[in-house]
Amino acid sequence: MAAIIAASKPSDWQPLDPENTLYLQLPTGRVVIELAPKFAPQYVANIKTLARERYFDGLAIERVQDNFVVQWGDAAHTKPLGTAKRSLPAEFLVPARDVPFTPLADPDTYAPQVGFAGEFPAARDPAIGRAWLVHCYGMVGAGRDDDVDSGNGSELYAVIGQAPRQLDRNVALVGRVVQGMELLSSLPRGPGPLGFYTKGEQRMRIESVRIAADVPRRERSRLEVMRTDTRAFAELIEARRNRRDSWYKVPADRVDVCNIPIPVRRQ
Amino acid sequence: MAAIIAASKPSDWQPLDPENTLYLQLPTGRVVIELAPKFAPQYVANIKTLARERYFDGLAIERVQDNFVVQWGDAAHTKPLGTAKRSLPAEFLVPARDVPFTPLADPDTYAPQVGFAGEFPAARDPAIGRAWLVHCYGMVGAGRDDDVDSGNGSELYAVIGQAPRQLDRNVALVGRVVQGMELLSSLPRGPGPLGFYTKGEQRMRIESVRIAADVPRRERSRLEVMRTDTRAFAELIEARRNRRDSWYKVPADRVDVCNIPIPVRRQ
Repeated sequence: MAAIIAASKPSDWQPLDPENTLYLQLPTGRVVIELAPKFAPQYVANIKTLARERYFDGLAIERVQDNFVVQWGDAAHTKPLGTAKRSLPAEFLVPARDVPFTPLADPDTYAPQVGFAGEFPAARDPAIGRAWLVHCYGMVGAGRDDDVDSGNGSELYAVIGQAPRQLDRNVALVGRVVQGMELLSSLPRGPGPLGFYTKGEQRMRIESVRIAADVPRRERSRLEVMRTDTRAFAELIEARRNRRDSWYKVPADRVDVCNIPIPVRRQ
Repeated sequence: MAAIIAASKPSDWQPLDPENTLYLQLPTGRVVIELAPKFAPQYVANIKTLARERYFDGLAIERVQDNFVVQWGDAAHTKPLGTAKRSLPAEFLVPARDVPFTPLADPDTYAPQVGFAGEFPAARDPAIGRAWLVHCYGMVGAGRDDDVDSGNGSELYAVIGQAPRQLDRNVALVGRVVQGMELLSSLPRGPGPLGFYTKGEQRMRIESVRIAADVPRRERSRLEVMRTDTRAFAELIEARRNRRDSWYKVPADRVDVCNIPIPVRRQ
């Protein structure tokens, strides 16, 4: 993988779009999230409104469930949402023709076809002409209550364990952690049901959530992500499918969509 | 899942065998590992020898690679192995007829068939009549160098991320964490290549590793694991395949072998 990245061309990469990059600032560092407006445009717009109105500042990590998710938002459910919408339509699926798609050849347990849509792991079903993002490690979703239109982006979660693919098509995925994942995944697990923290002092405070475009240039995390529609990424898929080094004796000859990291590097 | 456990019969469970249960004692608590002698008998015997000769006591967690593994052992590679063997044959596969197997109906990306062998997630290939344990979250394996017979159980790892199924059939899996997983998964990630810690003070010290049978009865973790060849477990698989609650709107109708937790409870 390092060799493929080293041999890649500048055109194999694209910089994060500052308008669709979120900085979740924790006392321990910055978590950088690439948003997915092609898949959840209204959620992304609402999250940006919330961020710009400082909704998340001073809230906290409220839940860390081992092998599942880290969740942040307003544990008390009392903070006003400002001008952000209270509920959003279910942005769980999009027309497949509306998004790029680089299919994986390998079979998947959950979906008829999996692959990559832009910089995100995704799936699609040719029978219904729909595509959706999939719950791999590091993907960020928006919590909702029982009604499909009850989410609004004020409660977000990131996957920190085995891909909970049963959530696919049931909830809006809004992006992916591209840097600082370890700041979330190494948090102490919550002692309450579903990994919720039970005491205020257990919750790590969110210092701020900002849109990269709103941050002075010199303070931005200048990152670029490998394009998934390139020969370099195709080589990376093949390298993950069959590890060619002296340690592996039985190459898998298969790969799960969630076992292919989409490389990120400093610009 | 809670309802299925509540409705289960005593015969749906079996207590951990004290002779094949390992207690990894960290300053933060006890990690309980169920060993898998049916799959890696020589590795399990060697690990027990190492534990009984106090090999692991005073060693440390040396590597925590995000979304991959936590590894512990002798970072300096200098501690004598005592009467334990220096190398072991590759216990990566067993004859399928030698182990129980409850197959899953769902397709798997990596193996012709997946399911459960005793209390462990497993796979098998009818074409070659072999079975093997699979690298799900919480599974414990024995590190090796490039030669397949270079491992000896003195370096152990636990999976803390998306199932690295490419390791299947390439390395000996020796057991599974059944309690205390969060003590491993929430450790700070190592800053070095492959997640190795780079300074001594970053490494959490191992207070001791003991076989449960060697610990006074009153100090044992009295745990039992749900049998996977029971109707209760079949119901649990179905419950994981199609979540029947008011939140899920599109049941997956499929499930990955690594998305089915094998329940553990206090006896």
